[in-house]
This record gives sequence, structure tokens and C-alpha cells, in this order.
Amino acid sequence: MVKDKKTKPSKELPLGFVDRQEKELLIRDFVISNIKEVMIKCGFQYLETPSFEYTDSIGKFLPDKERPDQGVFSFKDEKKWLSLRYDLTAPLARYVAKNYLEIPKPFKRYQLGTVWRNEKPGPGRFREFLQFDADFVGTENLMADAELCVMISEILKKCGLTDKDFTIKFSSRKAVEWVLDNYKINSKDKRSKVLRSLDKVDRLGWSEVKKLLGYGRKDASGDFTDGADLTEDQINGIRWWLKYDSKEAYPPGTETAKYGSEETYKEIQKFRDNLDFFGLKNYKFDPTVIRGLEYYTGIVFEVNLNFDVQNFKGKTIQFGSVGGGGRYDNLVSNFGNFDCPATGISIGLDRLVFALMQKKDFKIKTVRPIVICVFNKNKNEEYIGILNKLRASNISSEIYPGEGKLKKQMEYANKIGSPAVILYGDNEIKSGKATLKNLKTGNESSVKIEDLANEIKKLL
Amino acid sequence: MVKDKKTKPSKELPLGFVDRQEKELLIRDFVISNIKEVMIKCGFQYLETPSFEYTDSIGKFLPDKERPDQGVFSFKDEKKWLSLRYDLTAPLARYVAKNYLEIPKPFKRYQLGTVWRNEKPGPGRFREFLQFDADFVGTENLMADAELCVMISEILKKCGLTDKDFTIKFSSRKAVEWVLDNYKINSKDKRSKVLRSLDKVDRLGWSEVKKLLGYGRKDASGDFTDGADLTEDQINGIRWWLKYDSKEAYPPGTETAKYGSEETYKEIQKFRDNLDFFGLKNYKFDPTVIRGLEYYTGIVFEVNLNFDVQNFKGKTIQFGSVGGGGRYDNLVSNFGNFDCPATGISIGLDRLVFALMQKKDFKIKTVRPIVICVFNKNKNEEYIGILNKLRASNISSEIYPGEGKLKKQMEYANKIGSPAVILYGDNEIKSGKATLKNLKTGNESSVKIEDLANEIKKLL
Repeated sequence: MVKDKKTKPSKELPLGFVDRQEKELLIRDFVISNIKEVMIKCGFQYLETPSFEYTDSIGKFLPDKERPDQGVFSFKDEKKWLSLRYDLTAPLARYVAKNYLEIPKPFKRYQLGTVWRNEKPGPGRFREFLQFDADFVGTENLMADAELCVMISEILKKCGLTDKDFTIKFSSRKAVEWVLDNYKINSKDKRSKVLRSLDKVDRLGWSEVKKLLGYGRKDASGDFTDGADLTEDQINGIRWWLKYDSKEAYPPGTETAKYGSEETYKEIQKFRDNLDFFGLKNYKFDPTVIRGLEYYTGIVFEVNLNFDVQNFKGKTIQFGSVGGGGRYDNLVSNFGNFDCPATGISIGLDRLVFALMQKKDFKIKTVRPIVICVFNKNKNEEYIGILNKLRASNISSEIYPGEGKLKKQMEYANKIGSPAVILYGDNEIKSGKATLKNLKTGNESSVKIEDLANEIKKLL
Repeated sequence: MVKDKKTKPSKELPLGFVDRQEKELLIRDFVISNIKEVMIKCGFQYLETPSFEYTDSIGKFLPDKERPDQGVFSFKDEKKWLSLRYDLTAPLARYVAKNYLEIPKPFKRYQLGTVWRNEKPGPGRFREFLQFDADFVGTENLMADAELCVMISEILKKCGLTDKDFTIKFSSRKAVEWVLDNYKINSKDKRSKVLRSLDKVDRLGWSEVKKLLGYGRKDASGDFTDGADLTEDQINGIRWWLKYDSKEAYPPGTETAKYGSEETYKEIQKFRDNLDFFGLKNYKFDPTVIRGLEYYTGIVFEVNLNFDVQNFKGKTIQFGSVGGGGRYDNLVSNFGNFDCPATGISIGLDRLVFALMQKKDFKIKTVRPIVICVFNKNKNEEYIGILNKLRASNISSEIYPGEGKLKKQMEYANKIGSPAVILYGDNEIKSGKATLKNLKTGNESSVKIEDLANEIKKLL
């Protein structure tokens, strides 16, 4: 890795990172402006925490190890380890703990920001994501959990989706915990492996998840993931509970078993009532909603898109969720001796934008400038004069920014998708009229300089 | 650093990183929306490169070392080193090299993004910055350099500044290179130390910079920086050229000496003419504009604010520039065998926002929600009914999100700066009227549910 001066540097990007183009960014801006409108209407405060946190603040030291988890990007700084945040929830917990005396309680905040995961990159798998989060901190009220689902629904509708385009699925972490207890899956390590495995049912299907619950699984690249080592009985029990891959009805009298305890059943009913009061239609209870992260303690939910999405290779895929969240009542209290129940939601903006770009009826407007062609390098004053007039009328416009003949200038204007060019050569300068050439139709017209802005507005 | 389960995690942030609050973020959003409007009007394409690049792509391997420069955050990834970008220019050069055949030439793009510098943090010195960049790639045309200055001026004016509030200062890297040649400062290492030192004249003053040009300098914290080891004659020569700390006129006949060569003088004249054609007023030539980075090759410029800015301790400070840039004709061609002259500008958004927040006449509106107080936990349907009505009228509103008595709810409403609360107890539910309490005046009025939205709009 010694840098040799004769070696050219790499033009490539590291795996898991991408360049993003204008169309995607404009759709993302549109989504973000919708999010902000909904957040203001719902009374959330805007907050931003930095990209780095102390590794121990975001719970990413490996148990009994001196090094952080390999799943995060970490960096040793004099004495302590810093990590790039892997989500926006752990930094929020740190923020609340740090500012506990000053913040309103409950505390409602939203944040937009990049998160990083130092995981094995693969096709379409990224190591950097833009995420939106909204959270209620310091409340046990289940209305908050319901409102988060209502908010995400409103955001998606503002982005042009209808009730048919998405479903909000929910369950409770308490239900799956009850199943783990019921089948005597007690060790912390096993429980967390089971949760992570079940979270993949959507993407991998039961037959693959079954391997993860048992001995382990080899993925397409040949890498092997150790399984949770459950017994056949335990795996079948979980499968029965999930009702995954089966159309048979629950045995009579066991209908509420899917909720676990009676308490969980009541909690879910209450949550569901609130959804109804808010007028939310497209939700359903689904025990396969697990959410992989360990910190959840109650209601969990996910938003799934119902329209076809194709991957980079043009293959229609199980897209999975564009967002989700749930209740995490213990995360903040890890920092101190105070109770601080909380609930929150995240949207993966890159994923949502990726899906929106594929919706047939979704349109976004890109503006391309009018190009003023340059005939005489000594006439900058004249060209800039026209440019100043067009821009004063708020018309996107530019003087050809390079140096070259007219042919090259026209190629440039076509390449950037310019709607029209202005031709203003020496003869035209004398006559006080420019030629306006419409690049869509090829039509040319001779226009007085003072009328140019109006003629262009008609053309656009 | 073994994580002890009994130890609470840190609530603090690593040095050089901060949490940002709503007011600052709203001002930043306002600045960003102005930037985007100007960029569209001027015909720039929107692009985003990722936060990580291969370390060698952004030129941050130390000469003859196997490790990256300490000034960047770097991570070893299987075989190669990755670094968080320290600016947006080096990644642009990589992007252009990678996509050279596809992009329009010249290529005009803008980008907004975080950059990271792993430098020694100090009071008010950050290690993470939000930056805006606009660049012309693939053109030698000096109109581009001028237009960048015009654009930054328009952005600042849209943000509420006047011509008096800022000055665009410019020079040419060729002028200072000429001085270095003239005084026989030939080694690459010395030249780059001199450039970095001269870039600090604004902030440190000549007496401190003189130390950096000579033996070296100890900073306030006691850290010593090695100097460029110039002779007394060389230092005096540079000082004469800068005219720093001196009111005496240039000796007759040496007026153009400050520009270096005749060629540089003509280039600067051309640039200045273009500024005049665009109608820019508040610019001036200033040889102390150096720009620290090594890649500049021609015109360089900086935007300085002329109003008082106070630091975190309330002390009025030399704020320095909020942005700048210049021509870098060799950066892109490092990647391949093609010429690719370019010029660009950056604005440090955090710094600009910090300064705007201190402008007396600068106002930004924050919206706080109406709070619907909760009297009876079993009446969620009624409370959510009111909430749905207010939000349907686009009124920022919320149901008190916690659980507590009315006193606690009123404290909450005051704490978040709510303009009014809605009181809707059992008696009020019977009567079909709610009490609307204005928290600014203390006035209460009894309002029919269907009239609430209108009454609130009057109050806001």
C-alpha cells in the first residue's frame, strides 16, 4: 500500500457506497420536505446529533472485549473509541440522558441523518443509509405508538402513495418473548440469535430461517452463519406460533395464544383502538414482525410496500419494509437511575426513494438551463448582459461554460437536456436581436433582447 | 476499556462534535433552500458522492508511508484503506475521472454534504462540517471563476445579507508562487508550509505567522508546530509583498509586482472585468488570500463577513471567511491521461449559520403545537377526534403525549412554547364545547368543536 507516485489513484468506490444522481436526490428532497411538514404539524422538535459518538455510549463494545463490534466503523481517539452511529435511536438515548434536566418531558423529536453499518457489502447492500427517525421519549402512553404509524402513513400519502400501496404490520416484542419463554429458550445469546433470524423470514423465507434457528446457514457467497442451535421441538413450536407457511386455522381456544399473555393481548387491542380513532385503515397484526434490534420491549411495527419493485438487475423482488420501529422502554435508562420509556419510528429514505422511482405514476421535475452560445470571446459583456436579464426573471440559464466551436456548444446543450439555446453572434449584436432556438422542436426565432425572457417563458 | 456492566455509558460527546438544536437547523434549511434555488437558476446539476472514499483516491496517503494521513478518519477494509472525505472537491475529481466518458463537458455540479477532519479539537473547532460546493469541471474559461463569486454573493443576499455585510477578496495562487520563486523557496515541503502559514495571517496575525515561517510556533495549548525555516530576507520579502502590517505604498513602478508576472496581472484583470459585467460590487484584490490546500493553481477567493460575530464565550472575534475556493487545474488529471482544468467554491454552512444567528435583524419562525390536554384516559376517541380536525386544517397540534395531572400538562405546554391549550374535560364533552386557553395572554374562551380550527387560526 505504499503510494507510488507513478500509480494512478483508484477511480472506484469502496463496496457498499454509491454516487447519487439528480433525479434520486430531487425525489429525496421531495420526501424530506413532506416529512418536515408532517413533523411540524405533529409538534415534533427538530434535532441533530453528530455522526460520531463514543462507542460505549451507543452500546457497541463487544461483551468482555477491549474492541468495538466489527459491525460499526470505529476509530481510536487518544484514549477512547469513537464510532460512526449505526442508527439514530442510540444517539437520541445519549442526548436525552445528557440533557435530561433541560428537555421537556415527554420529549418529541425528529432527526434526519446518515447512519453507517460496517457489514459485509453485497449487491444492493449498502454501508451508508439516510434515515429519518421520530420518537416520543418519556411516555408509556400507547397513543404515541399508534400516532407514529399514523404519521408514517401520512408521510407516504403526501409522497403520492395510496392506502393500497402499503400496509402497516405490527406485533409486540412481548409476544415473541412469551414464545421464547414458553419453549424454554433462555440464554441471552440464543434469544438474540432467534430474534435476528426471525426478522429475516420476510427476506429469506422459512426454510432458510429454519437453518438459522438450527445448526446454521451458508449464504449465496459461501459464508456460514452459526445457528441458534434450537431443538426440533423448539423450532416447530416457533413455526406454529408464527403460522408461517401454513394456512391452517389456530386450534379453537388458542386464538389469543398468538399474542402470548392476556396482558399483551390487551395492549395490542388498545393500540389497535387508537389506530382506529386516528382513522388509519391499512394495518394488520402479524406475528412475523420482529425487528432485529435487541432494544425493543413492546409494540413493534413495519411498513411494507405492496407494489412491485425491481432490483438493480431488473428482477422483481420481495422489497421488505421501508420503515418501522417500536417501543424501547429501557434504552435511555441504561445511562442513569431514571425510568424513561420511549417509542419511535424510522424510515430508510434511500430505500423509499428507490421504490418511489419505480412507481409508474411518480413524476419529478428537473430544470435544465437555457444555454447562451459564445461566438466571440471578447464580447463577455454582451453575453453576461443577456444572462443577467434572464436570471433576473428567474430563468435557469448559463453562458456555455467551456471554450469551443458552435458545434461543440450545441452538443453540450443537447447533452445536458437544455430546452433552448440563444445564438448571439456579431451580426445579431449589431441588430439587437438574438436567435432563440428551441431544442425540442428545432424552431428558431429572432427575438429582441428585451423580449427574450418572455419568449423563453412561453417556450418552457 | 473493558466494558463493565456496572459502569454507565458516557453521556458526553467526543471533542469536536456537537448536538444542533431546532433554531440552528431551521436557519440551515433556509440557507440550503436558497442555495438550491440559485443552483437551479445557474444551471448546476445536483450530485451526491458517499462519505467514504478509498484513501488513495482522495490523496491522503502520507508520502512513502503505508498509513493514511492522521488528519483524516481512516479505516482498514480487508485490503485497502477507506477514509471519510475531508472535502467535497477530491471526491468530485474521483467522480469525474470515473465517469469521464458519460458526463457533459464542461460539467457543472453542486453538492451538499458533511466533511470530516481528524484534527486536534479545541474550543469552537469542530471535526465535522456541513459544506456546500459548486464546481465547473473541464473549462479554463475565467468567466467560470467570476460566476462562482457572483453566485456566492447571490446566495448570501437571499439569506438576508447586504453588500455591506460581506466582501469577496481574491488573489491568484500564481502570484504567491511567483513570490516563492523570487525568494528561492524551492523545496516542496517548504513551499507547502509557507502556504499553510500564510493562510493563517487573518486568524493569527503577522507576528505569529512570522514564527511559522521561521523556526516554529508554540500554540496556546503548548503544542509546537515546526516552522518553514526561511531566512530573515525571505521572510521580509514575503512581508513586503503581502503589505501586511504596513501602510506604506508600493515603491513607484512596482505596483504590479504584487501580482507577480505580467501574465498573472492580465489574468486578474480579465477576472475582474467579468465580475464587473456581472454587476458584482463588493470585491477586492488582496494578496493575503492564500487558501491553505495545495491543489489550487490560479485565481483564489474568499468571502469575509463584515459584521461582528461573537464566539461561544461572548467575545467578539475575527470570524474569518465563510467560504471560498479557486481554480485547481491539475486535480482531476491526477487520475488519468487527460487535461481537466476546473474551478470551484465552498461555503462552510455551520459557520455561515453561526454568523447569521447573530445578525440582529435575522428572524426565523419556529412553529410549536397547540396542546390538547387529557382529562380522562378512556376518552381517547374524543381527543383524537379533535386532533384529527385540527391537523386536517394544517394546524400544528398534539394530544399531551405523557401521563399526568393537568398541572404537569400545563407545565409541559409552557416548556415547549405552545401558543395555546385545549381543555376538554367530561363536562365540556357533554356540552360539545372545548375551552381554548391562550398561553400568551392567559385568556380563555369556550368554543364549539367545529369552530376550534378557525378560532386557533385567529389566535396564531
